[in-house]
Amino acid sequence: MTAVTDAEELTTVGSEVPVSLLERWPSLSHEERITEFKALLRTDAEDLFLNLHAQEQNEIYSELTPAERRSWIRLLAPDDVADLIQLFAAENRPAALALLDDFTRTEVVALLAYSEDEAGGLMSSRFIRLRPEMAADEAIHYLRAQMKAPSIEVVYYAYVLDTSQKLLGVVSFRQLMLSPPAKAVRDIMTTEVISIPEDMDQEEVSKKFAQHDLMAIPVVDAENKMKGIITFDDVVDVVKEEATEDIQKLGAVQVMDMPYLRTPFLQLIQKRAGWLIVLFIGEMFTATAIGHYESEIAKAVVLALFIPLIISSGGNSGSQASTLIIRSLALGELRIEDWWKVLKREILSGLVLGLILGLICAARIYLWPNRDQLYGEHYVLLGIAVSISVLFVVLWGATVGSMLPLALRKLDFDPATASAPLVATLVDVTGLIIYFTIARVVLNGSLF
Amino acid sequence: MTAVTDAEELTTVGSEVPVSLLERWPSLSHEERITEFKALLRTDAEDLFLNLHAQEQNEIYSELTPAERRSWIRLLAPDDVADLIQLFAAENRPAALALLDDFTRTEVVALLAYSEDEAGGLMSSRFIRLRPEMAADEAIHYLRAQMKAPSIEVVYYAYVLDTSQKLLGVVSFRQLMLSPPAKAVRDIMTTEVISIPEDMDQEEVSKKFAQHDLMAIPVVDAENKMKGIITFDDVVDVVKEEATEDIQKLGAVQVMDMPYLRTPFLQLIQKRAGWLIVLFIGEMFTATAIGHYESEIAKAVVLALFIPLIISSGGNSGSQASTLIIRSLALGELRIEDWWKVLKREILSGLVLGLILGLICAARIYLWPNRDQLYGEHYVLLGIAVSISVLFVVLWGATVGSMLPLALRKLDFDPATASAPLVATLVDVTGLIIYFTIARVVLNGSLF
Repeated sequence: MTAVTDAEELTTVGSEVPVSLLERWPSLSHEERITEFKALLRTDAEDLFLNLHAQEQNEIYSELTPAERRSWIRLLAPDDVADLIQLFAAENRPAALALLDDFTRTEVVALLAYSEDEAGGLMSSRFIRLRPEMAADEAIHYLRAQMKAPSIEVVYYAYVLDTSQKLLGVVSFRQLMLSPPAKAVRDIMTTEVISIPEDMDQEEVSKKFAQHDLMAIPVVDAENKMKGIITFDDVVDVVKEEATEDIQKLGAVQVMDMPYLRTPFLQLIQKRAGWLIVLFIGEMFTATAIGHYESEIAKAVVLALFIPLIISSGGNSGSQASTLIIRSLALGELRIEDWWKVLKREILSGLVLGLILGLICAARIYLWPNRDQLYGEHYVLLGIAVSISVLFVVLWGATVGSMLPLALRKLDFDPATASAPLVATLVDVTGLIIYFTIARVVLNGSLF
Repeated sequence: MTAVTDAEELTTVGSEVPVSLLERWPSLSHEERITEFKALLRTDAEDLFLNLHAQEQNEIYSELTPAERRSWIRLLAPDDVADLIQLFAAENRPAALALLDDFTRTEVVALLAYSEDEAGGLMSSRFIRLRPEMAADEAIHYLRAQMKAPSIEVVYYAYVLDTSQKLLGVVSFRQLMLSPPAKAVRDIMTTEVISIPEDMDQEEVSKKFAQHDLMAIPVVDAENKMKGIITFDDVVDVVKEEATEDIQKLGAVQVMDMPYLRTPFLQLIQKRAGWLIVLFIGEMFTATAIGHYESEIAKAVVLALFIPLIISSGGNSGSQASTLIIRSLALGELRIEDWWKVLKREILSGLVLGLILGLICAARIYLWPNRDQLYGEHYVLLGIAVSISVLFVVLWGATVGSMLPLALRKLDFDPATASAPLVATLVDVTGLIIYFTIARVVLNGSLF
């Protein structure tokens, strides 16, 4: 959430801050940012500050003297102040709140009660209110007056509230301007308003926006009392943030709070070590599994050659399946109830893909010039065992990879936890068992 | 791009189409969609149709009789018609264009010249134009008149053009309404306008929006002639689309054009088989690599036990590193010039993470009750060899995983090509060589 949208934004950013500075900002180091910021004229610095995200504002704010901080924090709209203060350690919040005027402080404290990733935490409490009995021309005059307040976020919709702040309807500028001047707002307004409950998760909020293509959606409490509005620009940030979280989870990294280069080293290790350790311990069972077949390997060392090929085929087909299903779930294209359709598709896909890879594998073994030297006299049977194993392991990978995210969603976990490395690890142990079981059956009497 | 935004949207969707139908839409099957659509009243069906994405509109459009199609396609704004027609096979386009009125057809044909993922392909050509010499009150009157055209996308900014259509400035409603009525538009407008070149890639367009928090940005050609506007709502779709593409690439799937359940089976196979085959052929080198150490394995079968554990550790640390770097590049947080900073961080992270996993591995081998039965009399040396291998393979994974996306970007390829499975495959072969080389050195004279 940045403080200014629409016209103001346009005037200030467009005309004063060098546009290129704002565009270079994400790739500047902390020191470069502070240097650049301090080199700006006050008005340019203000324009820049208003256009930064809370995290970036905090970077600058924390470098200011306590005396300087007041004028900078007062520059922000209440929701932006709340976003900024949310980043402070609990013991630093009262000092920041003390810098605000009484009216803003009350609003900020109310906003701070919401968690950052729910609707209430995204909303702005400054929106335009109308009474149902107002006439259209009166409403337009009233709007013009309210527009002068610099922190009104969006001036395109006005919300019609009764005396107890309950949301009755919404009118757009366009509707007001196209109406006869004497017509009452209640007869112009749309009464079936799309609204968002204050505790809705931000991911759901972004879906609402995607479905309805609205510029702003009002936030209401359980009694339909209006609490604020969420505007379109906040949602783009949410969509990006959610995609980043999903991508990081899919790579088996815990969600990072800051850009890569700005994350402190110890935190970077901590975000990665957890999953690496879990996966490592899971993968230890592969040693146990292979241990059970040590006597087979001792008799036919050639079996060891294909271990990585077979387990990685399962892991890759599993990664593909889980990626497709996780993204479809995130976009709302797939429901848990579709699991049976998904399973049928994945069994069929796994069979076809496994067949393709199995045939490539057989071709590689049988067409290689010195196949009998490389793989021994029983290379025909070995080729059969390895190719059939590839087929079944790919099938198994697609099945596990597609069902795991659905099972996680069913159990109310985040499906994106089913990362490529996790699916690969799960499929590795079972893949080895499939491989050695098939090898035992096919090679019984020849190699063993 | 959907046809209606702001007030209209609000009136129509809010009041008429059951909101829940729109929310359930993504998870309905094709047949369910057609049935539901046909069951609606004409006005409800129109509201629904206007709120669907081009792909979904096409689903319905293709089920209509040629006679019905005219009224449905004429419902759409030119940019939405262009999006829809873009989905048709080339031979079906003329028939669709013939259904339009002459004026709209000219606009649609102009829009069709742009590729779908560049700025020109996203823009709407219907925006509000003003002349610099108009007075504020005249401009407001003029705006009110233009607002009545149902397909004007955004009524919040008006663009000031000279007689040759060159963009001179922009004014917002708010600026006009707050100005003295007689003041000329040229003295109110902002002249330093943020604009987008018509051939800018959509990913860059979404970054522009993220940086400037504007509701709409004008699109201009090389001579600064205004071609159209891109509005905020189109950008949310772009951000989602780009994230989906990246996620699919990271899972080693080719970018899908349609939701999972709606993708035809053969296409689903085709999108997956390519990468699976490439990875499979790459992974075949692991068999060759292990082949070189067959005599070592014959002497010490126990070495085979740790093959999956060692290579997967490298793959996992590589996946983490590539995921973090790819996302940072996509968000513009990282530049190619930062490669040296990244390399230093990843070498250090790889060492620390490798040390953690190496210690866990050593603990597992040395603290296991029947370690000498499981791993033989030389279990101490074996533990050293395996643990040191884990350390180096994790370090190697982090290095390859972080440098590969940067190298791809440098060579003008998409960094997201460095998927978890690709990094794992690259690290597998080298990981085996690291393992057996270390094992040879450490176990020389004991196991061998």
